[in-house]
Amino acid sequence: MRLLLIGIDMGGTNTRMGVITPYGKILNRIQYRTDVSKGVLKMLEELASRLQDLIQQIPEKDHSEIRVGIGVPGPVDLNRGILIEPPNLSELHQFPLRDFLERRIPFPLVLENDANAFTLGEGWVGAARGARHYCGVTLGTGVGGGVVVNGEMLRGVDGFGGEVGHMVLNPEGPICGCGGRGCLEVFASGTGVRRMVLEAIEREGHKGLLKEETKDSEKLTSEEVFRAAERGDELAQRVFQEMGRYLGLGLVNLTNLFNPEKIVIGGKVSGAWNYFISQAREVLYQRAMRGQRERVEVVRAECGDDAGILGAAYAAMKQN
Amino acid sequence: MRLLLIGIDMGGTNTRMGVITPYGKILNRIQYRTDVSKGVLKMLEELASRLQDLIQQIPEKDHSEIRVGIGVPGPVDLNRGILIEPPNLSELHQFPLRDFLERRIPFPLVLENDANAFTLGEGWVGAARGARHYCGVTLGTGVGGGVVVNGEMLRGVDGFGGEVGHMVLNPEGPICGCGGRGCLEVFASGTGVRRMVLEAIEREGHKGLLKEETKDSEKLTSEEVFRAAERGDELAQRVFQEMGRYLGLGLVNLTNLFNPEKIVIGGKVSGAWNYFISQAREVLYQRAMRGQRERVEVVRAECGDDAGILGAAYAAMKQN
Repeated sequence: MRLLLIGIDMGGTNTRMGVITPYGKILNRIQYRTDVSKGVLKMLEELASRLQDLIQQIPEKDHSEIRVGIGVPGPVDLNRGILIEPPNLSELHQFPLRDFLERRIPFPLVLENDANAFTLGEGWVGAARGARHYCGVTLGTGVGGGVVVNGEMLRGVDGFGGEVGHMVLNPEGPICGCGGRGCLEVFASGTGVRRMVLEAIEREGHKGLLKEETKDSEKLTSEEVFRAAERGDELAQRVFQEMGRYLGLGLVNLTNLFNPEKIVIGGKVSGAWNYFISQAREVLYQRAMRGQRERVEVVRAECGDDAGILGAAYAAMKQN
Repeated sequence: MRLLLIGIDMGGTNTRMGVITPYGKILNRIQYRTDVSKGVLKMLEELASRLQDLIQQIPEKDHSEIRVGIGVPGPVDLNRGILIEPPNLSELHQFPLRDFLERRIPFPLVLENDANAFTLGEGWVGAARGARHYCGVTLGTGVGGGVVVNGEMLRGVDGFGGEVGHMVLNPEGPICGCGGRGCLEVFASGTGVRRMVLEAIEREGHKGLLKEETKDSEKLTSEEVFRAAERGDELAQRVFQEMGRYLGLGLVNLTNLFNPEKIVIGGKVSGAWNYFISQAREVLYQRAMRGQRERVEVVRAECGDDAGILGAAYAAMKQN
């Protein structure tokens, strides 16, 4: 029997699904907007129904072993297949998603945290291909990530491990959503970039291209800051440099603690790569310990929006 | 054949050796001052000769399988059995210690980093007994440590992983011996305590009990600061509290990243436990992520000076 994998990336904005071979080739993929307006159960019913449709379309489905992996926000209880405090989907805390889906499709299913799925996808066929010791960092609305130690995802005793976004980098820094202060996330996320721009404008006044965008400061996005940097806006560029220096401190900690071969950086804010990466690397090479820093390579994610479905499929393949 | 283990802790001041059962019971131990005054090779010859004597004294040695583990400062190349940049013993960089000792005793030998040996010893028969996910932190002249992930020592790709003393906690902090700045080590080590006392005295003048001890500031030790704290010295107590707050930030990072069951703290500076631990725990419980902080227990090391020989023996037992 041929093994076929289905990877699902259940995001707050979009849900993606793909049919994937055991070699990481995506045969078919779909994407649709995640709609929670009618409640989370309706959203999950839609997911199950789309998944059934996708499976129906697999020509060789009757002669294949099919396994499904699903990446979800927040930690997961791998053994019981339940969600733990998913951000923005708090009603789904303790929801038995694996049982829910396995009642609707006749194939085994594994859950994986979405940042771990990103990390696994990049390690399988992306920028960390072949590495047994590596870290993944996603720069999105928040900062997520995962750590692979000797080929295995670091989970810790309850599956909450690998929270690279919540290393404290500056004890007096801004308050973080996690309850801490000065975590990597408050500096290197989209939200952090936005805050740093607004703070800089408050200090220095409106001087650059972001004047229009920041009139309604609630609506400013890190993409707008990136576009302003692209058009030569000096303040936007400086904010990304500052973000890069903090990201670099996070890379120092990961490098000293994990002695990884690679650190892969992805997520939407990583689109501004050229505006922050040299500062991040400079801090890393100035501050990390010699043995570790000479080994580590900091690389840009290669799988784009597919990392999540690839990693979820990989998790399904590796599950016993 | 009965398995017997010999654990060696090759320290800069003292060398310890013990004959240990596979259940962690120490049958016999010796200790002597590490003498490098005639060069490092003489020091190693003495170690080999003391080891031979210790083996001679084992009554059942002819009917036993004997394995030897040795904990050494600095990272080790486990596969080749060589030392990597041992601090204060720089002549021994790349020294093939395993081969050197295996030519002198007819038993297999494994090397282990000393902070890892501490961690393994406490996990075997000490304060982290039974835990599969835990961290060890040694507060000595520097800050060392080790991390056990799912029952295995975290090593990273070259064996340099687990450097818990070199997480950056304050990017503007004092310069650290590692080349970085504001690492846990500059705040939570004996050297850090001494520096903080001297800085406080420079700011505030000599007011307390440490007046005598700090006349020659080069000679001030963290033990003297501890004794002053015991005698009620307010400045000494405040310095330990400050150290505790930084240690707490380090515990936040370990807790968020590793989701450990336990964090074991040892080393000579941990003698001042009652003067820093409540601040450290307060920061941990204020700042770490909820799931992780509700699980972790911060405990004091239980094996004392034996942790190193126990952990080295354990490493020898577990080596294939």
